[in-house]
Amino acid sequence: MYQSIKENLYRLKENKLFELSVVTVIIISALEIGAKTFELSDQAYSFTSILDAFITLFFLVEICIRFIADNNKRHFFKKGWNVFDTLVVLVSLIPIDNSEMALLARLVRVFRVLRMVSVVPELRVLINSLLKAMPQLGYVILLMFIIFYIYAAIGSFVFKDINPKLWGDIAISMLTLFRIMTFEDWTDIQYETMEVYPWSWVFYLTFIFFTAFAFLNMVIGIVVNVMEEEHASMRKSKEPSLTELQQELAEIKALIKQQSSQQ
Amino acid sequence: MYQSIKENLYRLKENKLFELSVVTVIIISALEIGAKTFELSDQAYSFTSILDAFITLFFLVEICIRFIADNNKRHFFKKGWNVFDTLVVLVSLIPIDNSEMALLARLVRVFRVLRMVSVVPELRVLINSLLKAMPQLGYVILLMFIIFYIYAAIGSFVFKDINPKLWGDIAISMLTLFRIMTFEDWTDIQYETMEVYPWSWVFYLTFIFFTAFAFLNMVIGIVVNVMEEEHASMRKSKEPSLTELQQELAEIKALIKQQSSQQ
Amino acid sequence: MYQSIKENLYRLKENKLFELSVVTVIIISALEIGAKTFELSDQAYSFTSILDAFITLFFLVEICIRFIADNNKRHFFKKGWNVFDTLVVLVSLIPIDNSEMALLARLVRVFRVLRMVSVVPELRVLINSLLKAMPQLGYVILLMFIIFYIYAAIGSFVFKDINPKLWGDIAISMLTLFRIMTFEDWTDIQYETMEVYPWSWVFYLTFIFFTAFAFLNMVIGIVVNVMEEEHASMRKSKEPSLTELQQELAEIKALIKQQSSQQ
Amino acid sequence: MYQSIKENLYRLKENKLFELSVVTVIIISALEIGAKTFELSDQAYSFTSILDAFITLFFLVEICIRFIADNNKRHFFKKGWNVFDTLVVLVSLIPIDNSEMALLARLVRVFRVLRMVSVVPELRVLINSLLKAMPQLGYVILLMFIIFYIYAAIGSFVFKDINPKLWGDIAISMLTLFRIMTFEDWTDIQYETMEVYPWSWVFYLTFIFFTAFAFLNMVIGIVVNVMEEEHASMRKSKEPSLTELQQELAEIKALIKQQSSQQ
Repeated sequence: MYQSIKENLYRLKENKLFELSVVTVIIISALEIGAKTFELSDQAYSFTSILDAFITLFFLVEICIRFIADNNKRHFFKKGWNVFDTLVVLVSLIPIDNSEMALLARLVRVFRVLRMVSVVPELRVLINSLLKAMPQLGYVILLMFIIFYIYAAIGSFVFKDINPKLWGDIAISMLTLFRIMTFEDWTDIQYETMEVYPWSWVFYLTFIFFTAFAFLNMVIGIVVNVMEEEHASMRKSKEPSLTELQQELAEIKALIKQQSSQQ
Repeated sequence: MYQSIKENLYRLKENKLFELSVVTVIIISALEIGAKTFELSDQAYSFTSILDAFITLFFLVEICIRFIADNNKRHFFKKGWNVFDTLVVLVSLIPIDNSEMALLARLVRVFRVLRMVSVVPELRVLINSLLKAMPQLGYVILLMFIIFYIYAAIGSFVFKDINPKLWGDIAISMLTLFRIMTFEDWTDIQYETMEVYPWSWVFYLTFIFFTAFAFLNMVIGIVVNVMEEEHASMRKSKEPSLTELQQELAEIKALIKQQSSQQ
Repeated sequence: MYQSIKENLYRLKENKLFELSVVTVIIISALEIGAKTFELSDQAYSFTSILDAFITLFFLVEICIRFIADNNKRHFFKKGWNVFDTLVVLVSLIPIDNSEMALLARLVRVFRVLRMVSVVPELRVLINSLLKAMPQLGYVILLMFIIFYIYAAIGSFVFKDINPKLWGDIAISMLTLFRIMTFEDWTDIQYETMEVYPWSWVFYLTFIFFTAFAFLNMVIGIVVNVMEEEHASMRKSKEPSLTELQQELAEIKALIKQQSSQQ
Repeated sequence: MYQSIKENLYRLKENKLFELSVVTVIIISALEIGAKTFELSDQAYSFTSILDAFITLFFLVEICIRFIADNNKRHFFKKGWNVFDTLVVLVSLIPIDNSEMALLARLVRVFRVLRMVSVVPELRVLINSLLKAMPQLGYVILLMFIIFYIYAAIGSFVFKDINPKLWGDIAISMLTLFRIMTFEDWTDIQYETMEVYPWSWVFYLTFIFFTAFAFLNMVIGIVVNVMEEEHASMRKSKEPSLTELQQELAEIKALIKQQSSQQ
């Protein structure tokens, strides 16, 4: 009997309508979260509470269906997206008292919107390709971190007394450097330190050049990466390589030579 | 007789001079709109009124010529540009009283300048290629919207009391986040919330990283797209593929083998 | 005798040392211009006057040498760079009284530094490639101008009374829009108009999207352009095309068939 | 005996554990530098002093091992990274009195973090590829410098009296122009000069266009460069060229013709 239930649930899960209704509920849940940020009348507020309970229940049922319908229970939790879905649903089940935890509970509900990514396959592919690109960019990010760390240490040692809010310790300095990298009011910071150390513009200009270069390197790294993948996928298609053609030509030559020796 | 008129109009429409005079009138109309933004003497103002009437009449005549000269009346309004042209001309015909509607009438006249795009074929191609790229970028834009929505909801829940002008509800928060994405005075917003929540820089930095990554993905998506189209157009040209060459080599081999078996 | 002078000058012109001394004098002239922006002692000031006279004389002699050494006097002034060089030298000859014209004369002398570009061939190539790219980008620039013009007209009509300094007429509005495109304090402008028209953020966001898209299109246009040129230069190299290989294969087939019919 | 020591040290140097411990000490040294930017208790401060002595000693021993283990002593100091490592270690040995030099000594210690780059081969490759790209971009950078120099000279001549803090001399003007290039509060500078010279926006807009174009050129230069290297590396792989295939086809034709003449 369990088997027949499982098969029914599997058919349900694969149904287009099921997928569509899940997406619809996610969108409703997103709208509900958005509505809560506005000032609501008491009536509307109690309506969102009921809606919230319904959404939580729906998601719980959905995750159960997907779990039961899965053939391999062990593999179910090896997929990151399934773990993410289950966690979001479980945390939503924790009852909210109008206390300290209320804000946290609200925040967790926000992550329900992210379930959009786990349900729509095209978005999942996008996120996966981003995650795949990360390790290859690892060394450029490490290099950028080293540049940040060195400049933050220098800035903290030299400019600390000028403006402790910006250069107080290495952590604050790194935040300030990130701000400089985005060109956000960086000249104000520069003019401030230039009054004490007139040559301090060298610090800012070299930093901007180094980070810009490292950033450019990263972008080019991604572009080259994307292209190589494309080339690789082209090679995998059935087009023969020039090397294979060369081999065939060699075979033809051998055939002709054999013929002429036979005569 | 209608047929002969139609043919005459068709010849007129295809005439280079006709096209040129349309472009000229559009430019004059643009200059008139520009002139109206300056303080004008009464004389100049009455001149623009006359000019305006002339331009409206010219465009009306032009659209009639193009409609009559068209062979397939039904298809005429299936082309977006024709609908756009007709709408702009028709709305210009509504008489303006110096009332509430005056501003609206002026704004509609501004869109006459866009007729430049519908008349110059090269610009039409540019716009079409932009529109064609949109659906393919749809999922990246959806992903970006989800990122915006989640961060706006969190920002609105947590920072609402700190500055309601920036984080009052989810709509205002999304506008604030767009501002942060353009790096426009984003550190002011950050420092404000960091006074209450010292760890809130994590919110801003992760948001900047996610949107930057999604944006990068979009740009790369467009570049790869453009390249693939180019590759595809190259393949369509008469160059034989390597697979075809391989087939020919196989045929030659078969010929030689046949020969040697005949001997 | 003129012929022998011409040949001597030609040899002089082609001499590496001659080119080097021209570059040196240009650099000295650049340093002199830079020095003049600082407060100078009377002694130093009179020195720069003498230096200035020497540089003017040197450039005059140099241009004469190049003109006399040229075989085809008519073509000499057809090259843009020669015209530019001659103009800069001639304007430098106009005597400066310490009057209104003094500033203008100084500015003209600044353009001597641009002679660096006309003398160093690698820089000339760079500038030429930039100029060559311009016409192909013409339509994108035209499209961008139309977007600017329409938004400036709308902005000027609607926001004029809110802040005439930013939206006074269509020219000022276009400058304001350029500022918005560079994201420079654009939210201040936005918040100002949003107080009167709460929906005016649509104006700013659509403008940013359209210009960003047009800009992206321009960048991609340049990249695709550069690549096509490269492809074209690769095709010009001696590598045979696949079509040629196919023809050769056809010839071989014909040969084999001929053989088998002979037997 | 020296030989056996050398061999032992060489084996030690090649050991994975040795490399790992060097990286660990560099990370500890980085953390120590970071910790010093915070307010420290006396106890913690004396601990960092001891740690500092240990790190200096460790690096000294490490550099000695690497020097002794190297077969070719002369080549050792021809590698930039070795010179860099030795310099950093030697300067760390200079004793610090709590005097003027204390800050300098601290700064030198910061550069120990850069040893990360000299130890991790992947980072070394990244830096080398950046350095390799520099000379090829030389002319674009020179062109950009000329643009900066000319605009700084003009700005300094014309705007000096308006705001000497921004346009005082050519050096300050170049810094101001760099600020304008990053779009940092550039409209404030523009509006200031436009009050005196209403047409001065031409100065700013042309400058932004020229630098943006030069910058774009630089980016495209790098991208094209990277692609060419890739193409070159593809050609070096064992794939035969089309020219080689053509030669083989010619040989086959010759063979067939020879056969038919033999018959």
